[in-house]
Amino acid sequence: MLDVRQRLLGLRARLTQDGVDGLLLATGDEHITEFVAPYAQRLAWLTGFTGSTASAAVLANRAAIFVDSRYTQAVRASVDAGDWSYQDVPETSVGAWIAANAPQGSRIGYDARLVTRSALASIEEALAGREVTLVPLEQNPVDAIWADQPARPATPVFAHGIEFSGREAAAKHRDVAEWLASLGGDACVLVALDSIAWLFNIRGSDIDIAPLNYAFAIVHRDGTADLFIDTEKLDAKVRLHLGDSVRLAPYDDFYAAITRLAGKTVSIDPLLTPLAVVSGLQKGGATVRHDRDPTVRAKAVKNFVEIDGFKRAHIRDGVALTRFLHWFSVEAPRGDQTELSVSKRLTAFRGESDMLHSVSFDPISAVDANAALPHYWPSEESDRAIGPDSIYLVDSGGQYPDGTTDVTRTVAVGRVSGEVKDRFTRVLKGYIALETTTFPEGTFGHRLDAIARAPLWAAGVDFGHGVGHGVGQFLNVHEGPAFIMSHARPGETPIEAGMILSNEPGYYKPGEYGIRTENLLVVVARDTPGGDRPMLGFEPLTLAPIDRRLIDPTLLSGSEVEWIDAYHAKVRALVGPLLPSDVQSWLEIETSPLSNSDGRARTAF
Amino acid sequence: MLDVRQRLLGLRARLTQDGVDGLLLATGDEHITEFVAPYAQRLAWLTGFTGSTASAAVLANRAAIFVDSRYTQAVRASVDAGDWSYQDVPETSVGAWIAANAPQGSRIGYDARLVTRSALASIEEALAGREVTLVPLEQNPVDAIWADQPARPATPVFAHGIEFSGREAAAKHRDVAEWLASLGGDACVLVALDSIAWLFNIRGSDIDIAPLNYAFAIVHRDGTADLFIDTEKLDAKVRLHLGDSVRLAPYDDFYAAITRLAGKTVSIDPLLTPLAVVSGLQKGGATVRHDRDPTVRAKAVKNFVEIDGFKRAHIRDGVALTRFLHWFSVEAPRGDQTELSVSKRLTAFRGESDMLHSVSFDPISAVDANAALPHYWPSEESDRAIGPDSIYLVDSGGQYPDGTTDVTRTVAVGRVSGEVKDRFTRVLKGYIALETTTFPEGTFGHRLDAIARAPLWAAGVDFGHGVGHGVGQFLNVHEGPAFIMSHARPGETPIEAGMILSNEPGYYKPGEYGIRTENLLVVVARDTPGGDRPMLGFEPLTLAPIDRRLIDPTLLSGSEVEWIDAYHAKVRALVGPLLPSDVQSWLEIETSPLSNSDGRARTAF
Repeated sequence: MLDVRQRLLGLRARLTQDGVDGLLLATGDEHITEFVAPYAQRLAWLTGFTGSTASAAVLANRAAIFVDSRYTQAVRASVDAGDWSYQDVPETSVGAWIAANAPQGSRIGYDARLVTRSALASIEEALAGREVTLVPLEQNPVDAIWADQPARPATPVFAHGIEFSGREAAAKHRDVAEWLASLGGDACVLVALDSIAWLFNIRGSDIDIAPLNYAFAIVHRDGTADLFIDTEKLDAKVRLHLGDSVRLAPYDDFYAAITRLAGKTVSIDPLLTPLAVVSGLQKGGATVRHDRDPTVRAKAVKNFVEIDGFKRAHIRDGVALTRFLHWFSVEAPRGDQTELSVSKRLTAFRGESDMLHSVSFDPISAVDANAALPHYWPSEESDRAIGPDSIYLVDSGGQYPDGTTDVTRTVAVGRVSGEVKDRFTRVLKGYIALETTTFPEGTFGHRLDAIARAPLWAAGVDFGHGVGHGVGQFLNVHEGPAFIMSHARPGETPIEAGMILSNEPGYYKPGEYGIRTENLLVVVARDTPGGDRPMLGFEPLTLAPIDRRLIDPTLLSGSEVEWIDAYHAKVRALVGPLLPSDVQSWLEIETSPLSNSDGRARTAF
Repeated sequence: MLDVRQRLLGLRARLTQDGVDGLLLATGDEHITEFVAPYAQRLAWLTGFTGSTASAAVLANRAAIFVDSRYTQAVRASVDAGDWSYQDVPETSVGAWIAANAPQGSRIGYDARLVTRSALASIEEALAGREVTLVPLEQNPVDAIWADQPARPATPVFAHGIEFSGREAAAKHRDVAEWLASLGGDACVLVALDSIAWLFNIRGSDIDIAPLNYAFAIVHRDGTADLFIDTEKLDAKVRLHLGDSVRLAPYDDFYAAITRLAGKTVSIDPLLTPLAVVSGLQKGGATVRHDRDPTVRAKAVKNFVEIDGFKRAHIRDGVALTRFLHWFSVEAPRGDQTELSVSKRLTAFRGESDMLHSVSFDPISAVDANAALPHYWPSEESDRAIGPDSIYLVDSGGQYPDGTTDVTRTVAVGRVSGEVKDRFTRVLKGYIALETTTFPEGTFGHRLDAIARAPLWAAGVDFGHGVGHGVGQFLNVHEGPAFIMSHARPGETPIEAGMILSNEPGYYKPGEYGIRTENLLVVVARDTPGGDRPMLGFEPLTLAPIDRRLIDPTLLSGSEVEWIDAYHAKVRALVGPLLPSDVQSWLEIETSPLSNSDGRARTAF
């Protein structure tokens, strides 16, 4: 803790030097990215907290760290209570805490390269009527005192070929140029790493689990673009791939470059762009207009090549996961395995494909009570043995150049209680209800959320996370702009054909067990003869058996039994032939029909 | 048209006199009320448009009227195209039109007694960057030139007895006082007419179809209240009912009174309070705080006495509606009836109860293509004969002191096509799905909307209105704060036990027919053994037969058939004994079970 205490003292000295009385800091990097490289983990370095989402506020004589209910326990385990006060959001907020604790007349600094307008606006709103000023700082004061701050990653850039992307980067640039012309804009500035990777058809390894490169971009109305990227990352092949219409400049030149757009009308996405970009543009004499990042929708609506790629990637990933589930069914009952040991085995099965770039996120491998913890990841300390008569949950995925996967299966080891079967079956009923729903074009995902919950609600239970998120192609595993959650999210747009969404209802009994079943779905046009409007539906991409030992068939309708049997038949047909013969035999048994030939479910198997 | 043209010329002259270059005007009165008395129908007087919702903007050389898709045709039929430009919302907006049409430097007037902060803010936002100023006017310029403007209604006030309300007004005032104390407020200002009627347990007849009085109120932290109301409306009995803790003052004194609250902290609801109240309070030296009107939730969550009253009112109303449906089944096939003639007969059946105060809204009585028009009401011009082989829709309700009703039935005359049966059955399936849903406490109604649509979506169809709205007790038939609609509404709160909501899915085929089935529901706690959280569900209040000739039983599940039979058994049990014997016999046949003794639906009947 001593180290961390010294850091806080050093920071306060630096703040005095910078002429401010405090600092606001949050997880997140210069690109408003979900997963951040070590150099940008400033809050973790300062506080010791390593969770994905937190904010901190430092004043001269007190400091606070703000986390949501996922991290109530973790923050107490990792952050020194002597120096930091723990604050729960949404019960309180950074703004409310500053309003209550900062002396009148305080000047509180922040790094405008890390903060969007809406994040700052909510703090300013809480400070209304208080004499507290928020001050953008020239340099991040944590960077100023972080002696051994890691360097920004500089992994090689590689091309994402037309066989995967289905559309040349130059054509995508022309689309953006046409869009700019249609709204009277001269240029647009892109900061989000996945927007840039998609628009230029490039990928990298700057972030462990997302194949991205640190970069900024400006696209102009003439179809040319400026790409700000550490140029030593680019070999001749990639330079050729980028072509003549892309001007290359060093990453660090970006903020100077945006001040040279005087007289231009420049579009930015306020949800994805730091305040410093807006002020830089305005300082340089540009007119800033607020639009959605033009790549957001285009990237989310996959073309035929991308959808074909996703299907191939899911067969490949289904082979790895089915081999794992077979291996698990043999090994787990022997009693020698733990959450971490089986997780490593799963990653090894995935790694046997030379198409795998990386996992798409650290696997959640959790047994019994650990699986009931929201956002649990196994660590050396928490690692739990997989005992007899246990329930095991594994949520994992892979990054392949043709598609990204994200799948959850819950499997039984040994005997299973009637309650667990009831809950597992209701989760599955919710999954099936959503997957088989038909809905009109223009429907927002939050309208569909309750459909996946209704079978759980009928039993007086629910789950505390969203039902679905978008997934990028060889990009971020969590991608907007469509979601299936209980409420609309900022910038949410309707579901469209070609989008890829997860469907992942669950149930969690604190201290006992957790259940989740997740497939990725592709949105398709749904023909409804006699109907009067275009409708959409889902088709599953994920291919892996669902544990029938956890199903209570008496809770299923005839059409639900048919769905399960048809899904398993598809798994057998597409994954089966690619498996070793012993695994294929196991899969045949695991996916044999629930229904007899007369279509009625057997009540025991 | 000449008259209306003169009015616009007169208004422009008046605006010049007032020193402004234009005027904003909308439907709605000084109390932000849905149904307004003739004196407040300023937009209708000025433009000729009599629909429920519109805005108008008048400039020196042009004027525009803004309506949504419900009124696209009506506005063209009633408003002179020479003087007024027709504008569609949400494609455009008053703000956008002013921004595009008002010269730089313009000053546009508005009546701050008719406008809430949020309505004005959206206009101001559209004007950002334009040199156009919005100016509150001392007097409404329409009132200034409207020579024969009707007087504000002054109908007698009457008490709403404890046998209906279940809670004394003094106790309600104490609740508000305690709420004020809890948040550090000194007083709250109420403008909404139904809030005031509920809080003082008074009713009136100032508005045709809602039993309300024009009044304002201020409730103080000591539990006393000021009621601003035309005092000649109050007889000795009502004065006694109001008691000593209520100070009476003339309606017109209200705006002066709010300037005399210097030093007080005064709570207002920004969604229900005109801007002039806020500026009056501030001018007088009060501190304004924004909260929800404290009566909104209390009024929506009915107590046991109110729920019992709703049940009694629905039996009474069910008798009238069932007698009407029987009469209709005899008379309609004879070919002598029209939409208006049968609507009058329905109102007459309701009027046979001496408990009826008024209808709760003008009945929608519509046959075939007329029923497909959203917000159709029959008029002498539109009135259509009810022919053989037609589909008739009637949406109506009554105001009774113990409860307000709102019910829609669709019935067949003669032969029915398979398509109509399909659509009617899907609407009914949607109704049943929502009514039988169990959901967690804390759920917002917009999360349940899709449940009522899914059976229609499966056939590629949908409907363009919300699924449900709250209903007041002998107050407004449309009441917040909970709704069941496709998106969250401003100020929407979760559904709570004791709320009364409508459930009214429909289907409309333009030019052919319209279908809607609507019952009111009361929200109840739902026991779910083995569940881990408090759950809610619905019970139907409305009691009237659903036309089985329109049901295709092959589309129903076993539990849906059971629901219909159980609902009809309830109608027979509660309404049947109160009917004349010939109607009772008819009801027995009309509500006989769809299922045989083995629980399977008959496929023909």
